[in-house]
Amino acid sequence: MMVFSFSIKHSTSDSSARVGLISTPHGTIETPAFIFCATKADIKGVTIDQLVQANTQIILSNTYHLMLQPGSELIKKAGGLHKFMGWNGPLFTDSGGFQIFSLGHGNVCSEIKGVRNILKQRTLMNLTEDGARFRSYIDGRIVNLTPEKSVQIQMDLGADIIVSMDECTPYHVSKLYTANSMEKSKRWTLRSLAEMKKYEQKGQALLAVIQGGVYKDLRQESANFANENNFHGFAIGGSLGKTKCEMYDVVAMTTEMLDKNRNVHLLGIGGVEDIFECVKYGIDTFDCVAPTRIARHGVAIVKLNESRTKPQNYINLNNAVFRDDFLPISEGCHCYTCRNFSNAYIHHLIKAHEVLAGNLISIHNIFTMNRLMNDIRQSILDGKLNELKTEWCGV
Amino acid sequence: MMVFSFSIKHSTSDSSARVGLISTPHGTIETPAFIFCATKADIKGVTIDQLVQANTQIILSNTYHLMLQPGSELIKKAGGLHKFMGWNGPLFTDSGGFQIFSLGHGNVCSEIKGVRNILKQRTLMNLTEDGARFRSYIDGRIVNLTPEKSVQIQMDLGADIIVSMDECTPYHVSKLYTANSMEKSKRWTLRSLAEMKKYEQKGQALLAVIQGGVYKDLRQESANFANENNFHGFAIGGSLGKTKCEMYDVVAMTTEMLDKNRNVHLLGIGGVEDIFECVKYGIDTFDCVAPTRIARHGVAIVKLNESRTKPQNYINLNNAVFRDDFLPISEGCHCYTCRNFSNAYIHHLIKAHEVLAGNLISIHNIFTMNRLMNDIRQSILDGKLNELKTEWCGV
Repeated sequence: MMVFSFSIKHSTSDSSARVGLISTPHGTIETPAFIFCATKADIKGVTIDQLVQANTQIILSNTYHLMLQPGSELIKKAGGLHKFMGWNGPLFTDSGGFQIFSLGHGNVCSEIKGVRNILKQRTLMNLTEDGARFRSYIDGRIVNLTPEKSVQIQMDLGADIIVSMDECTPYHVSKLYTANSMEKSKRWTLRSLAEMKKYEQKGQALLAVIQGGVYKDLRQESANFANENNFHGFAIGGSLGKTKCEMYDVVAMTTEMLDKNRNVHLLGIGGVEDIFECVKYGIDTFDCVAPTRIARHGVAIVKLNESRTKPQNYINLNNAVFRDDFLPISEGCHCYTCRNFSNAYIHHLIKAHEVLAGNLISIHNIFTMNRLMNDIRQSILDGKLNELKTEWCGV
Repeated sequence: MMVFSFSIKHSTSDSSARVGLISTPHGTIETPAFIFCATKADIKGVTIDQLVQANTQIILSNTYHLMLQPGSELIKKAGGLHKFMGWNGPLFTDSGGFQIFSLGHGNVCSEIKGVRNILKQRTLMNLTEDGARFRSYIDGRIVNLTPEKSVQIQMDLGADIIVSMDECTPYHVSKLYTANSMEKSKRWTLRSLAEMKKYEQKGQALLAVIQGGVYKDLRQESANFANENNFHGFAIGGSLGKTKCEMYDVVAMTTEMLDKNRNVHLLGIGGVEDIFECVKYGIDTFDCVAPTRIARHGVAIVKLNESRTKPQNYINLNNAVFRDDFLPISEGCHCYTCRNFSNAYIHHLIKAHEVLAGNLISIHNIFTMNRLMNDIRQSILDGKLNELKTEWCGV
């Protein structure tokens, strides 16, 4: 049986970008890689066959959603999440913490991104040293999640790469709160590591979440702690600031602090430009719902010079300009959608309220993100990452 | 270029069941066959690749829906419906009449099935000798459809088998109304035939709709007319009565009246038991939205002995009994869904409101209907149609 490992195949002198290989019990992942979100054990509307045909290496499911519906016991009884959902490749799960805290603070992600939103219903009931207590968004029942429980659930799911539970610190808190929260996350992460030892022989990996918000000294403290303990790798979490610039600064300074021999995941970030920037700082894997979520709203990912209107990395197929556009989304693209269907057809499906539109654009976006990551890996090997970035994002 | 033809490969002595072959400009169809409804130029949530993998021979699109959105001119400009939707096989379109009249009478189909429903908004504005005038359900604009226009639109779409426009006579009318309506449909059908002559070299087929409601003498009159003119085949339309028994009687007496050397389509019928009955009366092709519509509501087609609860030709995957059922929908089935996914997984997707559930069940239902028709063809050749019916529907 293959166990988790990470090896660097190539690094560069002018940036921290690197090409690597992650091995897992369910196969390997060439990095930098993008991880697609199969939140509730499926990529909405896209079958596993279609995912594989789009060259997908790895997918992610959410512990929070699956522990509530259908429950991790059921998935364990089914033989694990791989068997349950028919996916045989590498699988990543998060700890459940992000959703508990972001929903708990009233919104899925706006709070940690610094956008205040106090109108939505709060579901986080109680946060103690032991863990978190929250209301299920499905049926209102009260659920406890502890670091140990999160590891147990992720092991029941059978993911290849799991994440330690942390408190997902909001943006609108004091530095003291962030410091205390980071310290608690350290204690939780040690408890996760202790729990994980019970499953050691299974070969899965535990990533420690690096906290500390936008504060350099706190990030350093969190990174030191993670470096000193034998986590398989790291995941950069917590608030990354309010602007793109702030985010790049936080990612740059944090990766600089981390042990270079372990893989680094950046939680929840996946814009094309963000990926180029963060690959340069040494990020190995990304996850984000965006490629498939925007697809369901009619938006396809393209290179800057392929957007028909203003220069951007997407086209919106809802626009009337596509009504009689008989070209594919991207003329150079070899995805199933671009080989077979025109923008006019997809625009028609959107206007006719057919879900197939979202499926077809999802297939294109998944294929495109996989192609982007493949091209990024090649460009790092060739020393041409900046040229590739210009091709995708302009100068 | 292949032109339309129909040949009988095998007929039986104990019933009117026959095995045949329809040739069209886009390939052949072994009959009896089922035609799947790609109403708005797609099978909701299912890609053309998935349709092909499920052994689909022929699909149907609706003139009524496509003339309103995106419009037949646009589809013509796209190179025809085959190219627009990426389907290279035989394609069937209806005349648009059914929707105009059934929506016009206040409901899609309940009226011609004899179920009164006067609450819904009527959209049929005017019915004359020339044609019908109705309001678009999309934007309220007024649209005229004549027999000639219907042929022109279907030719713009480029279907291989098209249907003449008729008045779809309701059930709750007098025999005199039905007789007058049938006479008008005859005149309309002659106008369709004249229009069709302009396109003769393209090799497509025009089916004449047989009207006359539940009245034997009117059906005979309509059948005589169709037999005497050189339509490529027939489609049985109009009211088939209020009960299954009445429907079987109407189908049996109508097929008996028709020229045996031409193919007979039964419009809008597709239940498993109905198919077995009507194949015996000599029906060659069926179309119905049911297999994919029920799939989107969580219902899968199975043999009688595969339904877990009471003996019936379906299982409802919404039911809690499937929560921890780790078997596929049908253990003997080789469809993509049954080879890869359990009822527990599909039940979870339904509970989690994931559209993938409907897609996976649609794939199973399409594969199953194609397998059913294949087995029916083989059983006719083997003289074992009744045995096959018992296997599927019981005694």
